[in-house]
Amino acid sequence: MAGSSFGTIFKITTWGESHGKALGVIVDGCPAGMELCEEDIQAFLDRRKPGTSAVTTQRKESDRVEILSGVFEGKTTGTPISLIVRNESQISSDYDELKECYRPGHADFTFDAKYGFRDHRGGGRSSGRETIGRVAAGAIAAKVLESLGVSVKAYTKSIGPISIDPSMSGICTARPNTSRQCSSSAVDSAPLSSSELDDSGLTMSTQDTFDKLRLTTPTCMPDAAANEAAMAYLQKAREDQDSVGGCMECIVDGLPAGIGDPVFEKLDANLAKAIMSIGAVKAVEIGDGVAVSTRKGSENNDSFVSVTDSSATNPSEISSDTIGKALGAIGKATNHAGGILGGISDGSQIVIRAHVKPTPSIYQPQRTVNQKGEEIELQIKGRHDPVIVPRAVVVMECMTAITVLDAMLVGATSKLESLQKLYEK
Amino acid sequence: MAGSSFGTIFKITTWGESHGKALGVIVDGCPAGMELCEEDIQAFLDRRKPGTSAVTTQRKESDRVEILSGVFEGKTTGTPISLIVRNESQISSDYDELKECYRPGHADFTFDAKYGFRDHRGGGRSSGRETIGRVAAGAIAAKVLESLGVSVKAYTKSIGPISIDPSMSGICTARPNTSRQCSSSAVDSAPLSSSELDDSGLTMSTQDTFDKLRLTTPTCMPDAAANEAAMAYLQKAREDQDSVGGCMECIVDGLPAGIGDPVFEKLDANLAKAIMSIGAVKAVEIGDGVAVSTRKGSENNDSFVSVTDSSATNPSEISSDTIGKALGAIGKATNHAGGILGGISDGSQIVIRAHVKPTPSIYQPQRTVNQKGEEIELQIKGRHDPVIVPRAVVVMECMTAITVLDAMLVGATSKLESLQKLYEK
Amino acid sequence: MAGSSFGTIFKITTWGESHGKALGVIVDGCPAGMELCEEDIQAFLDRRKPGTSAVTTQRKESDRVEILSGVFEGKTTGTPISLIVRNESQISSDYDELKECYRPGHADFTFDAKYGFRDHRGGGRSSGRETIGRVAAGAIAAKVLESLGVSVKAYTKSIGPISIDPSMSGICTARPNTSRQCSSSAVDSAPLSSSELDDSGLTMSTQDTFDKLRLTTPTCMPDAAANEAAMAYLQKAREDQDSVGGCMECIVDGLPAGIGDPVFEKLDANLAKAIMSIGAVKAVEIGDGVAVSTRKGSENNDSFVSVTDSSATNPSEISSDTIGKALGAIGKATNHAGGILGGISDGSQIVIRAHVKPTPSIYQPQRTVNQKGEEIELQIKGRHDPVIVPRAVVVMECMTAITVLDAMLVGATSKLESLQKLYEK
Amino acid sequence: MAGSSFGTIFKITTWGESHGKALGVIVDGCPAGMELCEEDIQAFLDRRKPGTSAVTTQRKESDRVEILSGVFEGKTTGTPISLIVRNESQISSDYDELKECYRPGHADFTFDAKYGFRDHRGGGRSSGRETIGRVAAGAIAAKVLESLGVSVKAYTKSIGPISIDPSMSGICTARPNTSRQCSSSAVDSAPLSSSELDDSGLTMSTQDTFDKLRLTTPTCMPDAAANEAAMAYLQKAREDQDSVGGCMECIVDGLPAGIGDPVFEKLDANLAKAIMSIGAVKAVEIGDGVAVSTRKGSENNDSFVSVTDSSATNPSEISSDTIGKALGAIGKATNHAGGILGGISDGSQIVIRAHVKPTPSIYQPQRTVNQKGEEIELQIKGRHDPVIVPRAVVVMECMTAITVLDAMLVGATSKLESLQKLYEK
Repeated sequence: MAGSSFGTIFKITTWGESHGKALGVIVDGCPAGMELCEEDIQAFLDRRKPGTSAVTTQRKESDRVEILSGVFEGKTTGTPISLIVRNESQISSDYDELKECYRPGHADFTFDAKYGFRDHRGGGRSSGRETIGRVAAGAIAAKVLESLGVSVKAYTKSIGPISIDPSMSGICTARPNTSRQCSSSAVDSAPLSSSELDDSGLTMSTQDTFDKLRLTTPTCMPDAAANEAAMAYLQKAREDQDSVGGCMECIVDGLPAGIGDPVFEKLDANLAKAIMSIGAVKAVEIGDGVAVSTRKGSENNDSFVSVTDSSATNPSEISSDTIGKALGAIGKATNHAGGILGGISDGSQIVIRAHVKPTPSIYQPQRTVNQKGEEIELQIKGRHDPVIVPRAVVVMECMTAITVLDAMLVGATSKLESLQKLYEK
Repeated sequence: MAGSSFGTIFKITTWGESHGKALGVIVDGCPAGMELCEEDIQAFLDRRKPGTSAVTTQRKESDRVEILSGVFEGKTTGTPISLIVRNESQISSDYDELKECYRPGHADFTFDAKYGFRDHRGGGRSSGRETIGRVAAGAIAAKVLESLGVSVKAYTKSIGPISIDPSMSGICTARPNTSRQCSSSAVDSAPLSSSELDDSGLTMSTQDTFDKLRLTTPTCMPDAAANEAAMAYLQKAREDQDSVGGCMECIVDGLPAGIGDPVFEKLDANLAKAIMSIGAVKAVEIGDGVAVSTRKGSENNDSFVSVTDSSATNPSEISSDTIGKALGAIGKATNHAGGILGGISDGSQIVIRAHVKPTPSIYQPQRTVNQKGEEIELQIKGRHDPVIVPRAVVVMECMTAITVLDAMLVGATSKLESLQKLYEK
Repeated sequence: MAGSSFGTIFKITTWGESHGKALGVIVDGCPAGMELCEEDIQAFLDRRKPGTSAVTTQRKESDRVEILSGVFEGKTTGTPISLIVRNESQISSDYDELKECYRPGHADFTFDAKYGFRDHRGGGRSSGRETIGRVAAGAIAAKVLESLGVSVKAYTKSIGPISIDPSMSGICTARPNTSRQCSSSAVDSAPLSSSELDDSGLTMSTQDTFDKLRLTTPTCMPDAAANEAAMAYLQKAREDQDSVGGCMECIVDGLPAGIGDPVFEKLDANLAKAIMSIGAVKAVEIGDGVAVSTRKGSENNDSFVSVTDSSATNPSEISSDTIGKALGAIGKATNHAGGILGGISDGSQIVIRAHVKPTPSIYQPQRTVNQKGEEIELQIKGRHDPVIVPRAVVVMECMTAITVLDAMLVGATSKLESLQKLYEK
Repeated sequence: MAGSSFGTIFKITTWGESHGKALGVIVDGCPAGMELCEEDIQAFLDRRKPGTSAVTTQRKESDRVEILSGVFEGKTTGTPISLIVRNESQISSDYDELKECYRPGHADFTFDAKYGFRDHRGGGRSSGRETIGRVAAGAIAAKVLESLGVSVKAYTKSIGPISIDPSMSGICTARPNTSRQCSSSAVDSAPLSSSELDDSGLTMSTQDTFDKLRLTTPTCMPDAAANEAAMAYLQKAREDQDSVGGCMECIVDGLPAGIGDPVFEKLDANLAKAIMSIGAVKAVEIGDGVAVSTRKGSENNDSFVSVTDSSATNPSEISSDTIGKALGAIGKATNHAGGILGGISDGSQIVIRAHVKPTPSIYQPQRTVNQKGEEIELQIKGRHDPVIVPRAVVVMECMTAITVLDAMLVGATSKLESLQKLYEK
């Protein structure tokens, strides 16, 4: 069936294959009147572009985006925004000998089972290039969110056994009381003194460093030392003709309380779907995630606090999770919940993690079968990333932005008074 | 917005609050002509019924289901099946003093933020009783699946630090080559000798024991020793006026290869949404899940194998993951992928795990705020489960069944030849 | 598949059969905080209740509605509102002999073709009683719309050859300049003098009479003379053991300009679906409808006018179609378009007409076949309306209300500035 | 919100504006394994191409389609098919002076009301060029339907007062017993003798002529004389600087009984939405449509007949409405219902009519207002069709094909036995 659309009010529909003529996305339902140009989108696409470092595939694609509709005189019109990226560097012959065999860890076999045949060139529709449409659409969602004061940031948390220092991570530095639990590793960071914190509970220099590193290191790690260690680890894996897995994390700041719908359209449920739909993701965690299963209730519950009352005695503890706008000065002392209670945002930072399997394409000989069911030895050629995570980070950020924005749009009129406010005579 | 519906062709819509008159579900799109009676559904509801053991709330509800429509002369008609369960044991006064305060870990605050006010009695719509509709609908989905040779089974994997012995778990016993990796604990089980295995790679007696235990132990653990240890651990937690978390697992057997749709409607993406939408679930894993992030590709890839060729040398290894029907005798030597590649089933067993937080209602005094933002000390009364997992297991099983069946229905005509087969003159 | 749900944000799901235990509806996505009680809904249900006059079936049903969820302390909570109506007067034996034959004009044959068998009692799910859920849900939608200043009113326009006098019709009286064209009959009414008009271009006494008549005459005609003629015509048809068709009309006042979405989610497209989905409706017209096909552009175009400028010279002409709020003092001189241009409301009155076939159940002997394909003569017993229109009028009103409200909800954030207004810090 | 998608399993998403860079459509959910090339699609696009006769706009567009994805080695892969048509002949300056005024009958005003501003060039998204995506997608749907033995044919029924001779129309010639009622005009045709009829009740030569005329006359009328009269009428309208309306009709042959879903997803409800969503359509009729409102039940009911029994005496009467496959030799003696009972196809020919308003762009001076609300006189320049119908006929055909195919896909598994047949081991 039609599986290439996502979202209800802000709806994206992606298309295209690894070795087809082009890939793209239709973004339908974007609010009208927002300034938008190709550079807004290109900046995001460049973050997933291949060939930019030693740890990505050497396939050369400029991945230039073209806006074909939905923008007039520099502003969104409210009608569908069609975005296209031409493929340039297809070397289909790399895949000729894969035509009749099933690569382990890839979708070759399942596409054949489902459709009776497949476009075998570079994985066809199951290729990582499919995410171009997601990223282009996510760039637009992120810009809408920015205009509402909501920011979405993803980064690499670990590659193989190498994890970032919790004190270097956006979430961990900024929120000392929550960080200790949200990491599956048990490393505690020393709490920052309050003089180091700005209004949002984060030192400006730390914030700058965090952003600069996650956007510029080849691994997308916001930690220079971990980045270096991970690069060495990746180099070793390449020499071994092997690949490695990793973990990425995404945080949403500034989201008001009250976003998400009960029961099936919970914010965390939709985030789980959005993130699990990214190829190679095998686990999704919200807040402290897996760690909650061995907790006691007395440890895991986040106390609500009054910002005003407690700020005198312990400002760093609660300031970062203050909800402020939504219901006055109510915050949480910790954020094990990752900003979501009962499927609805609580005004704290949203925290999501995704665990990514190693690239299935490795250069070592592998045992598999061909379409006739005969066992063969397979040696994969072509150009492949030794790790998927660094290029998937921006995809996670974009899927999160799309999901959060759509939740804000569908929930805009949850209260009768909101509806009346909009349609007041 | 409307968040109480789930599914595309097989669509369920649930309704009802903890302390309202009743709860229920509409199951629309169920294929016509299937025998169905109230007992089919009651059997599932009884598995989530409260008050059945020391580790569940003592609220007494008979939770009797009534079929109001959609079944005629004992068979489904294809039109909506309306199911209702009356509430009987509401003690709303238990909640009077909670009216104006926000319980930590509950959705009180977020419902107020979203809707401006809330039904505070027992959590209202955010109560665990909301799952009655899911379970009633899931019973129907499971019966349709059974008629297609597909079985869905969930059970408790761990409670607090107590895990079942991998050799006692359905997945681990049945699939020795995959079990070692799918457990986050590193305990290996001795492989069974081939003489102990039936055609599906599982000894009949083991299968019987597994089913009996998961359905009869108070913890839903398919391991008598672990069940006992967990019961002791729970007893201790109760004495401490505390609660505990845990992990549950669900396996799907008999699902043909080719189910699920690429990109956004991937089978794992929809399962992640379905399971994450269950209250208290904070993480979802597919196959080896979190563990893949520290793997090498050479370890994590599942080799495809020809059943015929390899069966002579190592039958127990591949028989359990034989795809058989879909594409001839092609199987996988291991199942790290949990039966899904590229979002589409590969014919192997589907494996999903969910991590559940401790019950947020604990009897210890807790720090929180009231609706005015004033800090208060809260002492919760009422009747609460000390652990959510055992009663959530059947909910996970049901959400899985609904998701898998809907994927089979929407994907029924992926190939033109399937469509032609149905509509042939 | 699941065909019993309608709407995106305000979503209704109906269930139930003519001779089952009960019928009902889930209303999901209703904004929170609106006062709602059973009487609000009962008032609408009473308008479609059978047995109230000589021209409806003599089946006696009290059709009492019960609210089972979604309302707390007299207000909607934002969660699903479950409504149930018990069947009381099923006489299934009336239908025993119909079990194996296909009634002309009914859905017996097509249900068998689709599902393989059917609930033959009273048409099962294809019965007119299915509309109970629509009406109960529509009562809620109408109440939300009322709070936004939008009113929806339906009435009978014709029964057989008997039409209401255009000057007695809500649309025609109220909007003299548009009325002449919106009627397919060519009867002109003398324009009212401006002194007879209130601010909305309608004399208060006329408005009162119109409302009183459409709600109290057995035919739902807002014209006492036509009602009498139609009653005589119906009496004759009953004596002939025959049934008759008719036409109903619905008008929406107060809808702001800008509601509806381009291309496929046009307001008129969704209204057409909503109204055509009512059993027995065979044609839907918007504005002047069928009549446009023989028009010239110079006749059919509605001129935009400035209310201020022209009001001095010809106030009665434009006041009724003033858009006012949306874009200042812009109105239309006529309303051939029925208030919709390019699928989006233009601030004028919305006008929809539906043509309803004669009740297929007639007492004359008819030629048909049984399930074996043998030709038989059929004589229908039971209790049937000689005309469907009067009881369908409230169904049309309700489906219109649901459609319009949902369009207002999904379109609430079409402009970025609306979104920012709602989420402003 | 997102309004540019249509369909559930076979889902299309269109994009593009009249004077943007390009227009296109994503067709998602097309079954895999069907041969498809650009010429299949181009043949349909050529039918809506402008500049092909004296009665269409002189804007010159080659409207060449390019397939960008979803087709591999000449066959559909099951993944999204992206189709693009570049705009070539935009003369945006034609519209400069329209930037600030609201053209009567157009969507200028409503787009401004909804979005705050608009792309004023050629109507932007509300232009008739938007239908390029619908036609390209419909060509694919039609090809799938053809492989299932279902054909969809639309043609012009009337232009202004000029109607085709009922005996020349596909529906009227082919189905003498039903034709007399399905026309709103009261002209009867002499019944054909049975020797003139082929198996489907249609003389081959008549069928050929019908198809040739509807596809080749400038008016798309399947009647040479009416075409000539209509051309003369149009010429006169052009000389008067005016435009005219008309009526188009679409028939579906070969559709099995049982397609469509009860209540809200009725086949006629979805057809009504599909057709009403085409710009300028103001009324939709199914079967005898408007005419039913003045009928008696005894006239309007279609008797079911046994084909075998009655064929000896009156073969021409029932052969055309034989359902054959679905439920043995059961047919209908007439087809007032237009092939749909209770929202589900009955195996007879599906008949839909749409009434189209005159082109709102006329060259006569018109009264309107500008964005400031000031009244102005407007004289429209540019290139416009004097009648919309001939170019809309193929759009109606395509929307019908998309709707019918999607209904066949979503209903494929209405019976449990169909599901079991597909997934049988």
